[in-house]
Amino acid sequence: MREERAVGAGDGAPRQRRDARRNRELLLRAAHEVFTEQGLDAPLDVIARRAGVGNATLYRHFATRADLVDAVFRDSLTGTMDAGERARRAPDAWPGLTVYLEAVFAALAADRGSNDLMTTRLRGVDSLDAVHEHNRGTVDALLSRCRDEGTVRADVTTEDVLFGLAALGRAVPALTAAAAPDAWRRPLALFLEGLRTAPAAGPPPALPTPPLGAAVLGEVLRELGPHRTRPGADREPEA
Amino acid sequence: MREERAVGAGDGAPRQRRDARRNRELLLRAAHEVFTEQGLDAPLDVIARRAGVGNATLYRHFATRADLVDAVFRDSLTGTMDAGERARRAPDAWPGLTVYLEAVFAALAADRGSNDLMTTRLRGVDSLDAVHEHNRGTVDALLSRCRDEGTVRADVTTEDVLFGLAALGRAVPALTAAAAPDAWRRPLALFLEGLRTAPAAGPPPALPTPPLGAAVLGEVLRELGPHRTRPGADREPEA
Repeated sequence: MREERAVGAGDGAPRQRRDARRNRELLLRAAHEVFTEQGLDAPLDVIARRAGVGNATLYRHFATRADLVDAVFRDSLTGTMDAGERARRAPDAWPGLTVYLEAVFAALAADRGSNDLMTTRLRGVDSLDAVHEHNRGTVDALLSRCRDEGTVRADVTTEDVLFGLAALGRAVPALTAAAAPDAWRRPLALFLEGLRTAPAAGPPPALPTPPLGAAVLGEVLRELGPHRTRPGADREPEA
Repeated sequence: MREERAVGAGDGAPRQRRDARRNRELLLRAAHEVFTEQGLDAPLDVIARRAGVGNATLYRHFATRADLVDAVFRDSLTGTMDAGERARRAPDAWPGLTVYLEAVFAALAADRGSNDLMTTRLRGVDSLDAVHEHNRGTVDALLSRCRDEGTVRADVTTEDVLFGLAALGRAVPALTAAAAPDAWRRPLALFLEGLRTAPAAGPPPALPTPPLGAAVLGEVLRELGPHRTRPGADREPEA
């Protein structure tokens, strides 16, 4: 440390701050990778090891798993809230709702970790609670205006939209992995068609993105199941 | 055994056959419970233990996991294929398709194990391969007739329907557990609305089943995530 002092500009404190900042960045990068690969309940010591730091260092930076998840995904979640703010200011509510849901799906498609986060409820992650609240508020406000405009059927509720969003959103990683990065556009467009009152909203637009082929759909469905079959699980039982 | 012979009607063979039949039934019942609780990749020795038999007995009855899954779910899968046969004979294709998809969802809702099975691809289960093939054939035939009738938009493909079916189907257990046994009717109706050409198919029917409340939707979403958070996973990491 004394040698460092002669070489560096200041005393030990800036160096310590630099190290801390570097460790924090290594931890965030490792956590993002590991959460994406293994899910949001991945063991924290795997993250520490991947970052090349000890568990104590991880704990010093992020006292709880929720703190770490919050830090990893805050930017992505803020982006979704920004899209919601823009959508709420759209002059016509139907295109506002459409463009907003497209922004949400694009974010889900871009990052498997953020998809898991948005379609799971993890307690104690402040930025996630905020984005869920904001998302609900955006859908609620736009849907209400759509009903007034006559572009969405009167009996469709905010929960109908949020449920559809979650059910389709969960399938986005399997879909984009097997088909194309924007393959979610087609099922989202069909879902939106189901909400519309066709005449008021104009003729149905052509469906975006080409239809899935049978083989690609097979790949999607293999990845969709709620229970991943363990490797070798279809082998014979031990007698 | 000799004593048994004096008491029973025949020699040891019928008794052995009775025991074998009984063990098979115990194994099927235990497997159904365990698959439903833990998924289709549940350890086979858990199933043997639940049935009160040894692993060797399980192996003698069901040489592979696929054989066991096949035997457990064959009746339910046959029921779905029967519904498909009836639908293919429907005089009008649109109600035929609607009633068929309702039958599929009702089966998914009735049995979590069969839901996992239908929305997962497990290799080597003959009855499952047959039902997937039959399901695709049913949707394909009815959709083609619907397009001819002008009740479904011309650009909707069999894969569009099968993908929607899988994405919504996966959410059925969480939905029925938190809301009502037939709560799937509402999102299915909205999905079908997205496929229709409104004028040819008549005015949109009222949505079935009441809308979800916000609190119930919260329960659904907590169960929907692809990665269940392990108990205690939001606790502090070990420092």
